[in-house]
Amino acid sequence: MLFMVEMDVNIPLDFDAEEAAAIKAREKAYFQELQKAGTWRHIWRKVGLYSNVSIFDVESNTVLHDTLMGLPLYPFMTMTITPLCRHPSSLHDDDR
Amino acid sequence: MLFMVEMDVNIPLDFDAEEAAAIKAREKAYFQELQKAGTWRHIWRKVGLYSNVSIFDVESNTVLHDTLMGLPLYPFMTMTITPLCRHPSSLHDDDR
Amino acid sequence: MLFMVEMDVNIPLDFDAEEAAAIKAREKAYFQELQKAGTWRHIWRKVGLYSNVSIFDVESNTVLHDTLMGLPLYPFMTMTITPLCRHPSSLHDDDR
Amino acid sequence: MLFMVEMDVNIPLDFDAEEAAAIKAREKAYFQELQKAGTWRHIWRKVGLYSNVSIFDVESNTVLHDTLMGLPLYPFMTMTITPLCRHPSSLHDDDR
Amino acid sequence: MLFMVEMDVNIPLDFDAEEAAAIKAREKAYFQELQKAGTWRHIWRKVGLYSNVSIFDVESNTVLHDTLMGLPLYPFMTMTITPLCRHPSSLHDDDR
Amino acid sequence: MLFMVEMDVNIPLDFDAEEAAAIKAREKAYFQELQKAGTWRHIWRKVGLYSNVSIFDVESNTVLHDTLMGLPLYPFMTMTITPLCRHPSSLHDDDR
Amino acid sequence: MLFMVEMDVNIPLDFDAEEAAAIKAREKAYFQELQKAGTWRHIWRKVGLYSNVSIFDVESNTVLHDTLMGLPLYPFMTMTITPLCRHPSSLHDDDR
Amino acid sequence: MLFMVEMDVNIPLDFDAEEAAAIKAREKAYFQELQKAGTWRHIWRKVGLYSNVSIFDVESNTVLHDTLMGLPLYPFMTMTITPLCRHPSSLHDDDR
Amino acid sequence: MLFMVEMDVNIPLDFDAEEAAAIKAREKAYFQELQKAGTWRHIWRKVGLYSNVSIFDVESNTVLHDTLMGLPLYPFMTMTITPLCRHPSSLHDDDR
Amino acid sequence: MLFMVEMDVNIPLDFDAEEAAAIKAREKAYFQELQKAGTWRHIWRKVGLYSNVSIFDVESNTVLHDTLMGLPLYPFMTMTITPLCRHPSSLHDDDR
Repeated sequence: MLFMVEMDVNIPLDFDAEEAAAIKAREKAYFQELQKAGTWRHIWRKVGLYSNVSIFDVESNTVLHDTLMGLPLYPFMTMTITPLCRHPSSLHDDDR
Repeated sequence: MLFMVEMDVNIPLDFDAEEAAAIKAREKAYFQELQKAGTWRHIWRKVGLYSNVSIFDVESNTVLHDTLMGLPLYPFMTMTITPLCRHPSSLHDDDR
Repeated sequence: MLFMVEMDVNIPLDFDAEEAAAIKAREKAYFQELQKAGTWRHIWRKVGLYSNVSIFDVESNTVLHDTLMGLPLYPFMTMTITPLCRHPSSLHDDDR
Repeated sequence: MLFMVEMDVNIPLDFDAEEAAAIKAREKAYFQELQKAGTWRHIWRKVGLYSNVSIFDVESNTVLHDTLMGLPLYPFMTMTITPLCRHPSSLHDDDR
Repeated sequence: MLFMVEMDVNIPLDFDAEEAAAIKAREKAYFQELQKAGTWRHIWRKVGLYSNVSIFDVESNTVLHDTLMGLPLYPFMTMTITPLCRHPSSLHDDDR
Repeated sequence: MLFMVEMDVNIPLDFDAEEAAAIKAREKAYFQELQKAGTWRHIWRKVGLYSNVSIFDVESNTVLHDTLMGLPLYPFMTMTITPLCRHPSSLHDDDR
Repeated sequence: MLFMVEMDVNIPLDFDAEEAAAIKAREKAYFQELQKAGTWRHIWRKVGLYSNVSIFDVESNTVLHDTLMGLPLYPFMTMTITPLCRHPSSLHDDDR
Repeated sequence: MLFMVEMDVNIPLDFDAEEAAAIKAREKAYFQELQKAGTWRHIWRKVGLYSNVSIFDVESNTVLHDTLMGLPLYPFMTMTITPLCRHPSSLHDDDR
Repeated sequence: MLFMVEMDVNIPLDFDAEEAAAIKAREKAYFQELQKAGTWRHIWRKVGLYSNVSIFDVESNTVLHDTLMGLPLYPFMTMTITPLCRHPSSLHDDDR
Repeated sequence: MLFMVEMDVNIPLDFDAEEAAAIKAREKAYFQELQKAGTWRHIWRKVGLYSNVSIFDVESNTVLHDTLMGLPLYPFMTMTITPLCRHPSSLHDDDR
């Protein structure tokens, strides 16, 4: 089941730089694990912004909620969630 | 080069049903041609809405503009365009 | 899987009254069938508005999309969809 | 008498973690007492957000106001209040 | 129980003038009946606009809904509903 | 001459509690003096919010400005001002 | 007593051109009468828009309401009303 | 050449009171110099707000920019700039 | 003196196609005359939209207003006007 | 390939003045290097604001992203990115 998740990251100007780097490293590891598992199907940077557009493939709303709440950068993010489904005109068998 | 395009379709209540069906058929053919060509990389329906989220892969801004202007449903659409780029954390070679 | 759906209905002033009544009757029958099936778990009127807040319980995003698209009043509605999940503090076994 | 209450929680990044945990524990106890009493009829998490949608059943506007003002997390919340009423098409005797 | 109701009236430019006058006359009669009954406690025009701010005193959300739906001008109105309660600093016994 | 004034109060989480209590006490005294004088004709709490809707009766715009600027809580408030006038359908002699 | 009134004019594309010209002529005459009387103290066009910013000097809210309602172009206008008062730093005796 | 400038002033609650008073004194002197020179043609307070509406008469966009940037309170202000021109219906020779 | 003008064009679906084509031809001629004269310094299409961003170089606000009002497509346009000036860091002598 | 980038700069009131001056100096040098290279084709100040409108000419979305992320003032900026293309009516060979 697919969802578009748009994430805007905002780290305060005076936040400790070392701690921020550590959180970003954990975020990257967490992301890559989910990417390999096929949960985090796509990610793109929005040009010029510290924001991304992502497509998640999950079994349920609850799994999506728990996955997003586990993001190390979650406390610094503003999230927009849009449930998606397959488009009837698509020639592909799955909705990738 | 990737762009997210969000399209909201709004056909007036009193628009001729047969003409609408013909336009939608042309739209579907136009879409599938671009999907096969790899230009229209992804398309998803937004749940509960007559709207889609699409990812386009084009050579330039101008190609994207001309492609969108050619959509048979274009006069009934509201468009939002967001330029994208590869995310540095991604494990994939391309930005699909 | 639960979703909040907010529906605002707007029938144009000059729309044929008899046709509107027929559509509303079909809408009511469609709603009651889904209510009996447990798909349309809750519905409330927003006070003073021709709008409702509803809770749907569906198997997937696609089922929700198809269900909403089948609403006889759909062409007159503006929809807002919010995916929900169980609250961890709740004492109840299901998320009703 | 039913009201939809949407609560967005925002605890500042630098707020003391222990104090936050204590407030959340008091919030949970306060919530469960109201849930048992039937005042706080429903609660759902909004997926991906630190927000909930709740349905309250109260005798009057004043009781709702006092109940919400008593929430331990109230100073960290943004509230939206929507008065509801039974939908005429519903097959159920009460508006649950 | 008190509610603030803000009503914006918008009659289309090409609406039949005689019919509009008849609806407004019915609206005035309906309003005055409710004013005498104490249900429609206050009404003020917003300066320069075809809008009013009103205070309703009703037994329940449902009574408010039915009262507003009965307004002859309802199909031409946009409504905003705000539940109110007595202010603790007030020196008056009722919330007038 | 009547004005609707909507006041939203926002005291920062870390503001000194004792000082806040002192300001609120001065606010209450200031309010009650104006209520007795008939300047602050009505006040209602918005349910669930730290906000009120008030009706002021003043001689001029300038008097209203000076009255509002004198509110002890003014630095913590966001204000919306709407000039009002008597509604032509009202059966009452004054616009109360 | 001074008010800023911002007026946006929107005449439908298919409105009868002759009737529009007649209404505009009446509007101009109405305006010039009020300008001579000192009620309509200032008027400026917003560059590139069919909109103006005006300053009215009236005895009361009610006079302003009746004056604006009398505008021949009123049914085509969207209005924003802002009550003003003299600025304490001004060197001038009146608030012109 | 005329411009409407709307200025909203927001001095943080914890800003040093003495420094604020000194900045306001410099602001007043700066304003009065420009008022005498005819550059700052009009200023009005917005009722109930720490905001003003002003009309500037300047030779060019650049002069307006430099004038506004020189305001001692500029770092505390949010600005909205609207270019104006003479209204064709006005009976006055200049656009005052 | 430079201004950014953003123009969104919206021709109704049922507008006569031949008349639209004639207006667009006049618009193009009008534009090219102003481009040659140096008044309409720049024009760019916004990708995917029937909108442009333009830079005008004019002597005064009034000249800009009259120029824009003369656009054959003006009745179909929504305009946003932003006054600009030279950036102090620019290495160029003029603000092109 | 052209993009409009609108940048709003907001340096906190209590940010160290010397550090701010150093960042602005680096920003100016970075800008001028890009201006000479033809990447940063145009820049204009928005009158009365600490904001600019810029036109970038880049090979790809990714180059634009990296260029903007390299701005010394980036952490203090809010960005809006609009992809542009040549206007078909333009008489010029390139889209400058």
